[in-house]
Amino acid sequence: MIVVMKEGSTRAEIEHVMQVLKQKGFGVHLSEGTEQTIVGVIGPKDRVRELGIENMSGVEKLVPVSNPFKLASRAFHPDNTTVQVLDHVVGGETPTIIAGPCSVESRDGLIDIARAVKASGAQLLRGGAFKPRSSPYSFQGLGEEGLKYLAAAREATGLGIVSEIMEPGLVDLVASYVDVLQIGARNMQNFALLKAVGRTNKAVLLKRGFSNTIEEWLMSAEYIMAEGNPNVILCERGIRTFETYTRNTLDLNAVPVVQHLSHLPVMVDPSHGVGHARYVSTMARASIAAGAAGVIVEVHPKPEEAWSDGSQTLTLEAFDQMARQVRQLHELTQSFQRQEATV
Amino acid sequence: MIVVMKEGSTRAEIEHVMQVLKQKGFGVHLSEGTEQTIVGVIGPKDRVRELGIENMSGVEKLVPVSNPFKLASRAFHPDNTTVQVLDHVVGGETPTIIAGPCSVESRDGLIDIARAVKASGAQLLRGGAFKPRSSPYSFQGLGEEGLKYLAAAREATGLGIVSEIMEPGLVDLVASYVDVLQIGARNMQNFALLKAVGRTNKAVLLKRGFSNTIEEWLMSAEYIMAEGNPNVILCERGIRTFETYTRNTLDLNAVPVVQHLSHLPVMVDPSHGVGHARYVSTMARASIAAGAAGVIVEVHPKPEEAWSDGSQTLTLEAFDQMARQVRQLHELTQSFQRQEATV
Amino acid sequence: MIVVMKEGSTRAEIEHVMQVLKQKGFGVHLSEGTEQTIVGVIGPKDRVRELGIENMSGVEKLVPVSNPFKLASRAFHPDNTTVQVLDHVVGGETPTIIAGPCSVESRDGLIDIARAVKASGAQLLRGGAFKPRSSPYSFQGLGEEGLKYLAAAREATGLGIVSEIMEPGLVDLVASYVDVLQIGARNMQNFALLKAVGRTNKAVLLKRGFSNTIEEWLMSAEYIMAEGNPNVILCERGIRTFETYTRNTLDLNAVPVVQHLSHLPVMVDPSHGVGHARYVSTMARASIAAGAAGVIVEVHPKPEEAWSDGSQTLTLEAFDQMARQVRQLHELTQSFQRQEATV
Amino acid sequence: MIVVMKEGSTRAEIEHVMQVLKQKGFGVHLSEGTEQTIVGVIGPKDRVRELGIENMSGVEKLVPVSNPFKLASRAFHPDNTTVQVLDHVVGGETPTIIAGPCSVESRDGLIDIARAVKASGAQLLRGGAFKPRSSPYSFQGLGEEGLKYLAAAREATGLGIVSEIMEPGLVDLVASYVDVLQIGARNMQNFALLKAVGRTNKAVLLKRGFSNTIEEWLMSAEYIMAEGNPNVILCERGIRTFETYTRNTLDLNAVPVVQHLSHLPVMVDPSHGVGHARYVSTMARASIAAGAAGVIVEVHPKPEEAWSDGSQTLTLEAFDQMARQVRQLHELTQSFQRQEATV
Repeated sequence: MIVVMKEGSTRAEIEHVMQVLKQKGFGVHLSEGTEQTIVGVIGPKDRVRELGIENMSGVEKLVPVSNPFKLASRAFHPDNTTVQVLDHVVGGETPTIIAGPCSVESRDGLIDIARAVKASGAQLLRGGAFKPRSSPYSFQGLGEEGLKYLAAAREATGLGIVSEIMEPGLVDLVASYVDVLQIGARNMQNFALLKAVGRTNKAVLLKRGFSNTIEEWLMSAEYIMAEGNPNVILCERGIRTFETYTRNTLDLNAVPVVQHLSHLPVMVDPSHGVGHARYVSTMARASIAAGAAGVIVEVHPKPEEAWSDGSQTLTLEAFDQMARQVRQLHELTQSFQRQEATV
Repeated sequence: MIVVMKEGSTRAEIEHVMQVLKQKGFGVHLSEGTEQTIVGVIGPKDRVRELGIENMSGVEKLVPVSNPFKLASRAFHPDNTTVQVLDHVVGGETPTIIAGPCSVESRDGLIDIARAVKASGAQLLRGGAFKPRSSPYSFQGLGEEGLKYLAAAREATGLGIVSEIMEPGLVDLVASYVDVLQIGARNMQNFALLKAVGRTNKAVLLKRGFSNTIEEWLMSAEYIMAEGNPNVILCERGIRTFETYTRNTLDLNAVPVVQHLSHLPVMVDPSHGVGHARYVSTMARASIAAGAAGVIVEVHPKPEEAWSDGSQTLTLEAFDQMARQVRQLHELTQSFQRQEATV
Repeated sequence: MIVVMKEGSTRAEIEHVMQVLKQKGFGVHLSEGTEQTIVGVIGPKDRVRELGIENMSGVEKLVPVSNPFKLASRAFHPDNTTVQVLDHVVGGETPTIIAGPCSVESRDGLIDIARAVKASGAQLLRGGAFKPRSSPYSFQGLGEEGLKYLAAAREATGLGIVSEIMEPGLVDLVASYVDVLQIGARNMQNFALLKAVGRTNKAVLLKRGFSNTIEEWLMSAEYIMAEGNPNVILCERGIRTFETYTRNTLDLNAVPVVQHLSHLPVMVDPSHGVGHARYVSTMARASIAAGAAGVIVEVHPKPEEAWSDGSQTLTLEAFDQMARQVRQLHELTQSFQRQEATV
Repeated sequence: MIVVMKEGSTRAEIEHVMQVLKQKGFGVHLSEGTEQTIVGVIGPKDRVRELGIENMSGVEKLVPVSNPFKLASRAFHPDNTTVQVLDHVVGGETPTIIAGPCSVESRDGLIDIARAVKASGAQLLRGGAFKPRSSPYSFQGLGEEGLKYLAAAREATGLGIVSEIMEPGLVDLVASYVDVLQIGARNMQNFALLKAVGRTNKAVLLKRGFSNTIEEWLMSAEYIMAEGNPNVILCERGIRTFETYTRNTLDLNAVPVVQHLSHLPVMVDPSHGVGHARYVSTMARASIAAGAAGVIVEVHPKPEEAWSDGSQTLTLEAFDQMARQVRQLHELTQSFQRQEATV
């Protein structure tokens, strides 16, 4: 953290700032320019911001200079992390493809979808049993019944299961059925929930909040890791902007930025990212070219009859084509990344 | 909901859309223009959006036309709602002033602050016992110990207590100490938490998520009300935009818009809204002029020694002046609103 | 500007950065912490950002620390600036009220409006002769004919005239008719236009671009002032956010922030800011309470028959009431500001 | 356009709305539901929004249903448009690669860069002669001297020349030197400039404003086309969001959306989009996978010595590698698009 003093701040003001910081246990380092004086602060990073330093006489502003995350940072762990889910490795040689219906609807229907997406190359099955809905009057999911159907689909196909968890009190229940605990965008800063999944050893798919910075996202990963669970998979799913033509603005820039800042694998959800089925396959391809470890998409045999999110759901045929393209692109992209490493 | 058909859509496409909607139990109403055909849809509002209608051949897009909230809407309840907290009425003749430290720090310090803000005219005391922090390494609050200090401050001063609740499992505990349960911005769409506070009869201060629309905010109020708790107080606290000079962009437009759409009282938090103490009093005044029922602000005898949020915290002296100005402005604004009602 | 080095950057990397900066003529100042090394850079501020320093080995990022504007800054000119327009002083004791139709429509109709708004206390008349329209098929304004009507309205009432200028080639023409040249939001970074109005001595009403930061806005003021014209009046008119209920998000926080950073007077346009007539008076009041020097609003005898922007246009009756309220609030707000200065 | 009436609006209110619309020459179509009545409006699309209908008694809101652009729309021109620049076809079989320095610096240096990027496969050379700069104190470009160097580079290499034009008065001058007139993001709604380039027959590279919707962008293309110039190439270059880690948020979703709505070719500028050289090649690849017709990037032999934008500038070596990857990906992406057309 740096404290920038106002032009014309006095010697007494500067010394008062330094004295207060020293009393709080921070190291300080003075740097006087012809126009501007700055005080570098060394110590517990996020504590400085909270002090009222900015209110002190002669202070212009505070400027942060370093990242507040540790376990999630690439500086701490230079090599890429991979996350094992059953016999599939997320972040490895093969692109991870997660597919399934928005909501779990029926046991048999789900097993049919699971068989179809497996045949197309998916390694993991997604399906909502507890659904976050803006309206209390919308369908809220089948609950534990839905989890049972998901487990049945795993038994039938061998696919690993991904499902969303929305409250700390349900972590044990959901974890007993699924292989990957999904934290949705609205809960990215539900810290009680992050801690609860951090105390399990299940893989966690942590979606980016639709209005959270990349730094906040990595801090939420840090919450999970600080509790002892290193199996975090990040997932970009679109941010909220002024543009209304797409449901959200899928921020693919986040993929290489996360890879620069962190060692964790990062996937993309183009279904929620754009919100219209006609753009999903294209954005899945762009995600892979941006370096994503894989994609998670919504599929349904008849999107117009799905109980939720039909507008952004792929048919099984469109998914099959997308999956093939994703594998081809992933191979090409990996060869590009190997070239880059050698430049 | 309206289904807009593509220019040049065929008769067969239009009829297929109408048939699917009818099968799902919706009423439909066809309107054919020279250039564009639209299908009006009558029925459970938010279900339509979820169908895959948008994927159907000949369909251009869906356009929502009506609000999805009911209990929170002014159409449902034309008169203003007031919320009683001990002997104070939020949304009544007197502006509500909530003040206190960001975090509860010590029993005696808190009681001193409570006495000071009461003397300046505050009716409610705020203080964080469980703190939502972006970093797992930041101070997370004193927990139940903090709640006990808050209860002691109520005993000493008669001020009602406002404190944040972050997880469903702690609702009973927190509700046993405080008078107003605060839902923070990050939890505005923590639906399990909304339902849990909806099952109490405590007043709830529902902050707007920093990236949530006014419609989503009212839907979250609906979640609480649908569980049986009508005592919802809304609180605007700034949204996230491209502007970085202020910590957030306090959206005062939301005040008159909420008053148009809903009967619930709406307050403003200028401390988090702008994030710099030097602008807080000015924005508190602007909030009241925009018609807010009151303000919630952070105060501390020595902001530069506060354990958190010092940069946006008022001194007791600045708060005292602000409170007097808020009362004067509220009286003038109410007289303006009475004039307006008669135009 | 500060150069933050990566954790683990080498002595050679640090020295190379310093050497390059010195060669470019910058002063440098090294500050080594236990975890992080930073290099302070002294010199022409915005040039550093352009260098490829960030690409150099061992560099983490660049952090700006000082404002890039000079003539517009309060540091350069501590007292408030006022701008004289005919016999009215913008930024003085009396709130400035600018009113008139979105588009100039007819000579007689305009004179009637001018008489009405003068009777209600407006000092300046607004009216669009050259209109910026998103669509080439929309009404583009009456052009010079409209300017003639505006001049006629000044002759009839004594009101100063405000009208928008959209291209450098028309500055002489427009300046020959009007008293205040308005730069619209879409042209806030039309640098050729800024320079052209900077070469006149007319007052300039510089609207904030709907996606421009406060810093960029003050830099655009700097463009005008650097050409020799000090008569700049700033005008907040709403920024673009994810919220769609209002046409824009009026950012009233910008008012006290600008007053902190700059000496220039700042007004507010609530008509464009919220975009719905029913909220305009309320947000005009909030603007004044936030400390604005005045407001600019759209009025029309029959908004539903206006040629443009009818949705956000006040009737003459609503305007008359708003103007009285604005004056009362301005007086009260000024008394508050005097109190504050003495705390 | 649709007029949504309030719940409980009266027959008289509904009829008054219809009567006013009919008087203005619009067709109307009434649709009465059990809860909500809507009035469909048929006629000149953007005129309705401007009427004060929304202020009329009983009216809830207006909802637009159709696109306001015509010449730029795919409905109007179903096949893809290609734009010829010298012997290169933008939007054809080969990906368009535009490269060059941010600012033109010297004649010989520019020719060296031109030779290098041509050898790597670029077909067009970019270089700024007139530079839009936030600060009046920044380097503003070499002006006509820079144009002469660009023309010399064309002579030496055969590459077509792309350079930015910032004011209507300079269109003839710039057009006499370059092959593609670039409209920068800040001028996307500089309507006088759009009309001026629309009156030439030069190709125009129209960048998206950093806060403009896709619809506004296509309306700006419509301005150019309505003047008679069909040679418009669109270019996505990042939008402004709350995320500050990247300079802008490159919105690749815009690529397939534009291709759905319009027949014009769309390119991407990853240099400005992310603003850091280390992410440029990755985002160039993602752009091509999203279906872009090509990319425009900033290159310099020594980015750390460039006069502007060094932070986002590729070295010649990095560019050469990127160009090869772009060609490979474009071929693969085209094969995917052919597959899709047959599904």
